[in-house]
Amino acid sequence: MKSDLDNLMQERNLDAIMVLGNAEHNPPMYYLTGGGHVRDALLLKKRGEQAVIYCNAMEREEAEKSGLVVMPTRLGAIDELLKNSIGIFEERRLLAGRVGVYGTFDVGTTMRLMDTLKNALPDVEFMSELKDESIFMYAMETKDEGEVARIRRMGKVTTEVVGKVAEFLTSHTVNQDEALIKEDGAPLTIRDVKNKIALWLAERGTADVEGSIFAIGRDAGIPHSVGNPDDVLRLGKTIVFDIFPAETGGGYFYDFTRTWSLGYATPDAQQLYDEVKAVYEKVVENIDLNVDFREYQKMVCDEFGRNGHKTPMNTEGALTDGYVHSLGHGVGLNLHERPISRHTAGNDNRLKSDVVITIEPGLYYPEKGMGARIEDSYWVRPDGKVELLAEYPYDFVLPMKKWKKL
Amino acid sequence: MKSDLDNLMQERNLDAIMVLGNAEHNPPMYYLTGGGHVRDALLLKKRGEQAVIYCNAMEREEAEKSGLVVMPTRLGAIDELLKNSIGIFEERRLLAGRVGVYGTFDVGTTMRLMDTLKNALPDVEFMSELKDESIFMYAMETKDEGEVARIRRMGKVTTEVVGKVAEFLTSHTVNQDEALIKEDGAPLTIRDVKNKIALWLAERGTADVEGSIFAIGRDAGIPHSVGNPDDVLRLGKTIVFDIFPAETGGGYFYDFTRTWSLGYATPDAQQLYDEVKAVYEKVVENIDLNVDFREYQKMVCDEFGRNGHKTPMNTEGALTDGYVHSLGHGVGLNLHERPISRHTAGNDNRLKSDVVITIEPGLYYPEKGMGARIEDSYWVRPDGKVELLAEYPYDFVLPMKKWKKL
Repeated sequence: MKSDLDNLMQERNLDAIMVLGNAEHNPPMYYLTGGGHVRDALLLKKRGEQAVIYCNAMEREEAEKSGLVVMPTRLGAIDELLKNSIGIFEERRLLAGRVGVYGTFDVGTTMRLMDTLKNALPDVEFMSELKDESIFMYAMETKDEGEVARIRRMGKVTTEVVGKVAEFLTSHTVNQDEALIKEDGAPLTIRDVKNKIALWLAERGTADVEGSIFAIGRDAGIPHSVGNPDDVLRLGKTIVFDIFPAETGGGYFYDFTRTWSLGYATPDAQQLYDEVKAVYEKVVENIDLNVDFREYQKMVCDEFGRNGHKTPMNTEGALTDGYVHSLGHGVGLNLHERPISRHTAGNDNRLKSDVVITIEPGLYYPEKGMGARIEDSYWVRPDGKVELLAEYPYDFVLPMKKWKKL
Repeated sequence: MKSDLDNLMQERNLDAIMVLGNAEHNPPMYYLTGGGHVRDALLLKKRGEQAVIYCNAMEREEAEKSGLVVMPTRLGAIDELLKNSIGIFEERRLLAGRVGVYGTFDVGTTMRLMDTLKNALPDVEFMSELKDESIFMYAMETKDEGEVARIRRMGKVTTEVVGKVAEFLTSHTVNQDEALIKEDGAPLTIRDVKNKIALWLAERGTADVEGSIFAIGRDAGIPHSVGNPDDVLRLGKTIVFDIFPAETGGGYFYDFTRTWSLGYATPDAQQLYDEVKAVYEKVVENIDLNVDFREYQKMVCDEFGRNGHKTPMNTEGALTDGYVHSLGHGVGLNLHERPISRHTAGNDNRLKSDVVITIEPGLYYPEKGMGARIEDSYWVRPDGKVELLAEYPYDFVLPMKKWKKL
């Protein structure tokens, strides 16, 4: 939680932190400011003290919504520092000792800024942390109730939109080739479906900034394929629909996946889905406070491995079929954050109180033209219970309203 | 244009360039790859040669849509380099001589990566360029016809949505306090309007990733205020509506502003608007191929200064009223790019053939509760003509359909 930042700074012997960039679409800056229309800003926070944000005077009122101390600059703060003087950034003596540096920002400008600061302040020791290991990722790992409420709200939006997509798909007519047909007679494509998803998310005041995955057939068997826009929706093919919208302005994410087969399922696809579903259920039944997240990844690898699938634990090198990824991850201001479940991850990925995680086992066989994944987001509550944040049915076959299997 | 990159590299004595980050919402990477679902990638391009993109093997097919050479890595490319070995990045000997570094990426990981590379490759000289002065900003300054067509398409979407907003506002009923009233009896707020804007943009397959400005009264007098969501729409107040949507996935922007007063205008506001309109027209009448963009900024400062307004050229220090910004900027994959019109800018900001620019004079008086800005985007064509990319009327007062001034 945000209140852990000072302790984390102390653990890592950091006297101050510096965050660069916009307030939006920049998790560390959003975390400390709450977002808003503030660009190319520079935030400094001494351990144990409130953060101070330096930004263009024109954005002062936007920045003040953060509740932080705002120091206006004539140019954008980083331009001011690079082109004019670092004097104003030193007045409050926040840049001293060991300073951790964070944010998402232009790479060349970051390099120039760090060179400038190191030359101007030789006594200050600037520390880099890899994104996934930074104090922010550790602070963000646990959520307060306000953050959970925002993720839960995104879960509600997500499942509403997924329901509308299911309704939309199953309302189409079907031609002789089992393709879904629009009112104008043209086949329904993934592009059409994605346009609807964007629209229905926007209607609910949210955005799929990172896009979403809606992949059919072979593409459903490639976890990172987002789907080919020109692909036509057809009966009896696996569809992997992974949707991960965020609050507009770069706020909290939700992460959710269902796998569908329209009209009917082939026996192979049904078996694949059933295996994924059984493993998903086993994990959810066993999930518990303070257990190491990696234990569940091992459980899933054991189950799938026993059924003859390749997994990251029984196969060396890059996997292209079987269970090719890990079980889940934390979700918050980052779509992927701590804790992590990869079996090679560190031993500090327990499901402690206040984490929000995804559970998302899957099996992929691109050469057989199929894949299946089920994903929901869960909150490990302070009382130790593990709560599903948004309910949605697990039907695999979605019956078409205007079509019956002969 | 993209074809200028090799010449720009030669001018700056760069043997190669390295670009970090995602393919989306990262202009240099988008420029070279065309976007797509590719994360934490690393792109290397030797001068005179095609670019090579290193990315997670799971994203190989997405990366191949770029048409570039794709080199799959087991982890994300940057993780692979940091955690395993830089060997695979050296195989093609692309990292040699002077290498410029670009992109938008996590700050701490960038610092760590650069330290790692400098240690491992002491003979390579890594060069930083400030974002606004980078070879990408110079290459992107001129657009080919395909790029202009995409910006024009965004202009069409933008003006369609602006028209729908005008229709939406003027269709409301008005209460005794001259507030706009919704069907449920509650007053219409900026939040309601912004939700509609997001919806109508999404319907057209685009997104206001950077938000938009819809500010009324005093906030209209603060150019960077995005508007208070709880503010109620009222008659006779200036509304500054600055909308700058981009293609989904971080593609091309359009940039557009109108100022409205619903129902009627106060004499002061009408005069303010007329002054802005007259200056806007004077610039547009005089705009011409190869003229220095700063000349038009000086023209606007002269005109406004003559009418007694403060401008960046007649006043020292930060301005809070009068003409507080500069006339315009290039627009493309970045909302703000070259050329720039600030009078203190360099002498290489001519309106050369193939640039796309905004023209956006404005006057701001927050203490008087009003502001006005007019903005359109123009293309300086290869034949020397300057073409407005999307037409939209310049009416200031929007008559309310269900209300008449007594």
